Order: sequence, then structure tokens, then C-alpha cells
Amino acid sequence: MIVNNQLFIIFSQPIFDLMLLSINKNSNETIVNQLLRQIEGLIDNGSLNPGYRMPSTRELAELVGVNRTTMIHVYDELWARGYVESTPGSYTYVRKRKTAVIPESHIENTDNLKTDLFHSNVDINLADIDKYIEGMNKTENEIIDMAHLVPDSRLLDKKMIGNCLRDIVSLADADLFDYAHPRGFAPLRLEILKHMKLHNIYADDNNIIITNGSQQSIQLIFQAFSKPGDKIVIEAPGYSMLFPLIKIFRLEVIEIPVTERGMDFKSLRKIAAKHEIRFIYTMPTYQNPSGISMPQAEREELLNYAESKNCIIIEDSIEEELKYFGKAHLPLRSMDISDRVIYLGTFSKVLAPGLRTGWIIANKECVRNLTAIKTVFEISSGSLNQFFLYRFLQSGLYELHLRKMMRAFRKRMNIAISSIRRHIPAERISWSAPSGGFLIWIKLLTKPIENIEDHFIKYGVNISAGRNYFSNQQSNNYIRISISNGNEKEIEEGIARIGQAIKNLN
Amino acid sequence: MIVNNQLFIIFSQPIFDLMLLSINKNSNETIVNQLLRQIEGLIDNGSLNPGYRMPSTRELAELVGVNRTTMIHVYDELWARGYVESTPGSYTYVRKRKTAVIPESHIENTDNLKTDLFHSNVDINLADIDKYIEGMNKTENEIIDMAHLVPDSRLLDKKMIGNCLRDIVSLADADLFDYAHPRGFAPLRLEILKHMKLHNIYADDNNIIITNGSQQSIQLIFQAFSKPGDKIVIEAPGYSMLFPLIKIFRLEVIEIPVTERGMDFKSLRKIAAKHEIRFIYTMPTYQNPSGISMPQAEREELLNYAESKNCIIIEDSIEEELKYFGKAHLPLRSMDISDRVIYLGTFSKVLAPGLRTGWIIANKECVRNLTAIKTVFEISSGSLNQFFLYRFLQSGLYELHLRKMMRAFRKRMNIAISSIRRHIPAERISWSAPSGGFLIWIKLLTKPIENIEDHFIKYGVNISAGRNYFSNQQSNNYIRISISNGNEKEIEEGIARIGQAIKNLN
Repeated sequence: MIVNNQLFIIFSQPIFDLMLLSINKNSNETIVNQLLRQIEGLIDNGSLNPGYRMPSTRELAELVGVNRTTMIHVYDELWARGYVESTPGSYTYVRKRKTAVIPESHIENTDNLKTDLFHSNVDINLADIDKYIEGMNKTENEIIDMAHLVPDSRLLDKKMIGNCLRDIVSLADADLFDYAHPRGFAPLRLEILKHMKLHNIYADDNNIIITNGSQQSIQLIFQAFSKPGDKIVIEAPGYSMLFPLIKIFRLEVIEIPVTERGMDFKSLRKIAAKHEIRFIYTMPTYQNPSGISMPQAEREELLNYAESKNCIIIEDSIEEELKYFGKAHLPLRSMDISDRVIYLGTFSKVLAPGLRTGWIIANKECVRNLTAIKTVFEISSGSLNQFFLYRFLQSGLYELHLRKMMRAFRKRMNIAISSIRRHIPAERISWSAPSGGFLIWIKLLTKPIENIEDHFIKYGVNISAGRNYFSNQQSNNYIRISISNGNEKEIEEGIARIGQAIKNLN
Repeated sequence: MIVNNQLFIIFSQPIFDLMLLSINKNSNETIVNQLLRQIEGLIDNGSLNPGYRMPSTRELAELVGVNRTTMIHVYDELWARGYVESTPGSYTYVRKRKTAVIPESHIENTDNLKTDLFHSNVDINLADIDKYIEGMNKTENEIIDMAHLVPDSRLLDKKMIGNCLRDIVSLADADLFDYAHPRGFAPLRLEILKHMKLHNIYADDNNIIITNGSQQSIQLIFQAFSKPGDKIVIEAPGYSMLFPLIKIFRLEVIEIPVTERGMDFKSLRKIAAKHEIRFIYTMPTYQNPSGISMPQAEREELLNYAESKNCIIIEDSIEEELKYFGKAHLPLRSMDISDRVIYLGTFSKVLAPGLRTGWIIANKECVRNLTAIKTVFEISSGSLNQFFLYRFLQSGLYELHLRKMMRAFRKRMNIAISSIRRHIPAERISWSAPSGGFLIWIKLLTKPIENIEDHFIKYGVNISAGRNYFSNQQSNNYIRISISNGNEKEIEEGIARIGQAIKNLN
């Protein structure tokens, strides 16, 4: 009897358990999920043992009082999750899962990984990047934002953009959804080449590759042409997001001061004399952050110097288009007879950084190498943004938008300049008025303070601290003002607040 | 007199030259450009010497017979190009350019760069990549394309997509044009996380980063977590575009044969026993190119094996969604209790590769490291495609599209399977019918031939050669058929042509 009894339990307890499966038709949980949860529970707690032959779907459906289709779903799902095994037309058996299905509640526990499995080999300061990402958030309403270098999106004609977007679907046909060419969508390449002629840059279709913005352009160049220990000449102050890239690629920095005439050649000659130089990185027009443009003589000197050193010039022309005061010299690439200038263009500063579209114009072999890396790294850039930009350029909307920007920023920069003269005590700052672009660089003649941004925030204005633009992050007595994001009223009020903040510095 | 005469020539010849500037009002060239061309010519050929004081714009305008505004434009442009120098309010002097302005005709000469300035340090075969890019072109009309793994864009509702695109401009407001978060547009992240629950993957917002497609996902993982010489286990046959990435990052490949049950564990245990493994890369569901899905027992075994080796699993789930025959096991990530699986998702195979949008779900620290690299490399992915996808998912259009794909490909795969049985002599091939996805992998029992694609092209069908899927490119007696791109008729006809081509092999 004991033997029988035990046998009875071994063979029949499971069927009782299955008979007790309950269904609540008023629950938010689907019937399939209710059944699944209960059956999985029976397997997990050992009530249904591995090897137990499950009733047929028909039998169990009758037992539980659901229709058979529901039960087939339940069995399929049990199979998908590895709780049962079966072959077509045969019985279904409970199987032993070697791993758990992770429940939703598990999420928070995933931080406790004990190993160093995800230790990164890349030389990157995670806390710095976290801070940078946090800083990307726009300033709150009551604070005037003069920190971000992002064009005022209020100048965009949203309706035209909406129509342009709708139109491309029918125009693009399948292309819009297929991979673009790794060098970029061909008609957009041609539009950009046409546009580059306005800057006296003549290039063939083999000389251009479209990228996800200038940051990717620089990255691809370093990927292709740098090796650890290579020397790169940069401007001080200079583009802040270049520093972590330089660090990742383990380049050695030669920082050259920027004067009123751009990169200081006397320093360059002296400091760089004994070095082999691989790259010179420069923004000759409306440099970020100084706003300074390099005069023609210095441009020519830089080209000759690069030739004597046989190095690559990376010409980052982020604000090239913003010649709203008329006068600006031509890009280095336009006089680059020895074909060593890699020109970086972008739509981020005049149109929209969110499009993440820039381009490179350079020597054909250079472009071929960059294209190969781009292909292996991500196949190609997105078609949607490229098709949109193609339409935007080709239909003339880009030219219209550019003219609107020119008119707006000619006024805005004039207001910024006169506001600085009016609102900031002249004896407390040293600066020079830019001849275009979005940026004004101001040296504070006051005592340096820590966390200078916080001081200005207290006065209701957000600026970018000068230390961000030096590789050693030392110089804290500079601020960068960006007028890209504000209208005339905001610019004047922002600068008035900056003046107030500076008056209250020691 | 001779002295006088000579003096006369020195001082006055330039003014005669300038008086001879001619204007053709019927020319296509603008008047400004006509004048520029001629004056630059005079400077370039030495008729106007450096230091020569140019007439005022008023004087020269009168001499030439144009209005003064035109001449101011000409002088400004001469200045921009470095042909003259002047300071505000002073005279204009011809200056000596040290470099030439490059004319349009120069373009073709730029190939003659003699130095190895653009020698790349990256281990990449340029010819292979050129060939790959060429191969991205769609097959011409009369050839049936069974080579490309790109979803049939005819299944997309273009009008709905057009409206969706137009709508996002007003919905998105400024966000659409601003930088997205480096981990991706926040509302899209949440939509994807919601969707992942359908695959039993529960993750927190800190566990996800949106990328430019799976290729970039893998690249970022290698950037962050690999160092040269690290060992990676891959499937053979396996994803072809993984090979150049592995080469660039100098990883050592351990290739494990794929059997009917996926990666062969007996081989893995034997081959990998003496190695430290850093990564296991696998496509457990509808593997590319074999079409095979790994059974539950093997999935569990793989997880346990990875734990014993303490390595990272990269789970590439490119066709995860395409479970149109109903049955498929859950992803590895859903049972990844030790948090070592990096799950790669993508919209490329069910929606549109041109959107270049994929995602990674993984351990929080892993995601933090990947995000840092993504930020430094390109700031963030584009906003436009992300906003579009957000709308597409959030409005339910994605679910609708997915169901449409399921219905279509359930039929199409059934037709493909029956066509193979009908049209290809069974004794000449070895294959197994997939349980989902787009791919069918066929072993030819005929004699191997070179350039196997060309043979099939002769019969009007484009297939992908098996050698592409082995790191040593040796095995040529396989072909991969993709049904992703064809409707029922095209699939049947394509396979009939494949049958014909195979009949005519030795």
C-alpha cells in the first residue's frame, strides 16, 4: 500500500496540480499568460518533474476549461521558453532548464556583476563623458543659454521642412529604405560638391565622403592615418571634443597659442622644429572657441609649413557658411596644391546638429581609405537624413535658409558686440569682436574662480568655461559666449547678465 | 628719355592693363567673375606686381564701366582669395600669393600625390571593400535578386510613412533638429524596451543604447572590450561583414562549424579548451547564412559554457522578429542570469536598412562604456530617423507592418521550400528547410567552380556565394539564397532558375 500510495503520488500528483490551474477572466493578464505563469511555477518548484509527459493540449484544455487553440499557444510558448520539449506529432515532456528565464523583477540585480568582464581597454574618462552628456541638456527656461553651440531652431521653417519630408517618400521610392552608398547618397554628394564651389573648392565625386558629422569625420581620419605616439598640432584654445579623441588614439599633442591672427607661427616653428608632425588640426575661419579668423598670409604660411613638414592638415570649417559680415578668406583646401588638406564640412551649425550629417573633401586615396573604414564600421550613413538634405539643397530651401541665417546673425552679432561694450566693464575683460560665426571669446581680467559656470548661472545666464578648450583644463579665466541659440532680445539680456556677473567678480 | 620711358612703363603699364578689362554681357559668366578672372590673370602673370596700389573701387568702376557695387564685390573677392590686401578705409595693394588658387581644371591632377601621406595603418583590404560596395548595387531588372539580405520595400505602406514623417516635424519641435542623447532618443529607447518584453527581455533604461545598426554595435563592442590577440569564437559559416571588423581589431578567430543544431559544441569544447576566450559571437535564431536556429538545450549549454570561460556573448538577433512559423526559442539574453550577453537588435531586416538604426541591450557598465565611445566618436545618432521610428512604433504602425511581414513571408518561405523540392534535383544538393527568417543555405554536391555567382547570373538569378561566409573564403560549394527581396512569383521563378543552373553543373 505504501508502495502503491507512493506510486500513486509519483504518477498522479502532477495531474492534480494541473487540474488546479485557475483562470481569472477579469484579470489584466491574458489567459495564456495566466496559464503559463502557473505551469512554469509547477515546473520551477518541482511539482512537474523533468521527463513528465504532459497531457495532450486537448486533454488539458478540457480539464482547465479553455479552448484548445489557447492551450496550443500555451504549449508553444512553454516550448519557446525551454520548459518542455517535443517533436512534431509526438508527446510533450517537461524538460530540465539549466538556466532560469529572467523575470522582470530581476532587472535591478544586474548591476552586481562581480567580474571585470566589461573592463574597457579604451583610454577614456567615463566621468568626464557622463558630465559632457549631462551638459548637452538645454538650459532651463529662466536661464539664458549662451553655452551651447547649436543653431537657433526657431529660424527653421518647420512647415516647409514637414512638406519636404513628406515629399521624399514618394520621390525616394525604395532608395530611402535601402542602404545608402558608404560614401553617401550620390545625389547629395553632387549637391554638396556644387555648393563647395561657392567656397572655391573644386572636387570630383571621388574626393567626397559623407559622414555622421565632423566628429565622425575626425574619428575616421584618426582611425585611418594615425598610430599611437603620432604628433598632432592643435590650437589653444581649441575644440573641446577633440581632446578625448586624441586621448583614445594616443596621439601626442602640440598645443599652439591662438593670437589675433590665428595659430601663432612663431611658437609653432619653435615648438615643432624638432618633431615629426603627422597632423595639423585647425579651424581657420571663426575658430571655436576664439571666434578668430586666420588672415590670408597665415593661411598661405600654414600650407607651406605643412608641405615642409609633409603632414596632413585637417581643416575643420564648422562655421564656414556664416560669413554674414561679408569678408572672409577662402578655405585652405581651395589653395591646397599639394593635396594634403582634409576639409571637413557640416550641416550641424547652420541647419541642424540632429541631422548628424557632415562631409569630407580630400585626396582620392585618402577618401578611399576613409570609405573602407566607414563601410566596415557601419556600412553607411542613414538614407532618411541624406535624402532630406538632398531635397532641401536641391529645391533651393537651403540657400533660402542660409540667407535668413545671414540676415539674422548679422544683426545678432552686432547687438552682441554693442551689448558687450555697453554692459561689461571694459577694464575687466579683454576680447575682440569676431568677423562672423557664433562665438565670442572673453578673457576675464578678474581673479580666476573655480566652477566659473556656476557663478554665471547665479546671474541667470549659462556660459561655457574656458578651461574646456585647453587640453590641460588649466586656464579658467576665459569664457566662451555662443549667440547661436538666442534671438536679439535674449542676446542683449544674456550679455547684460554676464556684465552683472563680471562686475561682481573680484 | 630711355630712363623716362622705362619709368613710364613701370608706373603706368598696369593702369593700361586694367583699362583693357573687358566685359561680355551675353556671357554665362557673371560680370564679377569675368572681372575677377582677368584681374587675377594680371596678378598671376606679373602684369600687376605685388605692392602695386590698386585704383579705388570708384576709379576702376568708372574706367571699366560697371557700377561701383559690382567693383566692391570684385575687390572683396580678390581680398578673400588673397590677391590683394587692405585695411578698412585704406588703399588696396596687390599682394604676393604664396600658393595658387586651384582652378576647377586642376581636379584630375590630384591623383599624382607622390608621398605616402595617406598610407593607412589599418589592416583592411581596400580591393575587397571596393568589391563589397560595388556588390551593394541592386541587381538589374531581368536578373532575379536572391543575393541581398534587404527586406522587400514593396511591403511598406509609403503613404503612411510619408504622413508619419510630415507629422514628426510638428510633434518633435526643436528636438528633431538638436542632438539626440548619445544613448539614443529617450522615447524611442522606451518603445524598444517595451517591444523587447515580447521576447522576454526585461531591461532598464540604463541597459540600452541605440546605434547606427548592428554593424556599428559590433564595432563599438570591439572598440571598448577587445585588445589585439583576443580570441573570438564565431560560427562557420558566419556573418561575412564580421571578418573585416575582426581583422581591423586584430582578434584571433576560432571558427566553429554550424550543424543542424547550431554551433557544434563538441568542436567548441575541443578547439577552445586550451584558449582563453574573450567573445563568443552567435546568431542563435535564423543564423546568417545557414538559416539554422539553435535548439533550447544548446542555448542553455552555450550560456553555461560562456560562464565557465568567463567570456562575453554577442547575440546578434538580426532576424529575431521573423518567427512567422510560430515556433522559436527565446533569445539568450532572456536567460542571461550572469549578465554577460550583449544583445544586438536592429530595424534593418524587418523595416529598412537605410534607417541605420539598431540597439544594444546589455549590462549597465557595458552600456556606459559603449556610450562613452559613441559620444567621443560621433556625439549621437541622427534625430530624424530616431524620431520617425519612435512615431512608427508608438502609433502601432510597426506592429501592423510586422504582421504584414509575417503573413507575407510565411507564404513566401513555404513557396521557396516547395520550389526547391520541385525545381532542384534532390541528389545534387543538401539543405534543410529553415523555421523562419529569410535565408536558405544550400550545399552543392556538384564539383566546386570558381566565381560561382557568375554561373548563376548566366541563368538569370543572383545568389550569394558560400565562400563569403568563411573566414578563409575556401568553401565554394555552398550558396546562400535570400527570399527577403522577392514576392511569391519572383521567389518561385528565381528558384526554378537556380535549379536550371544546378542541373548544368558537373
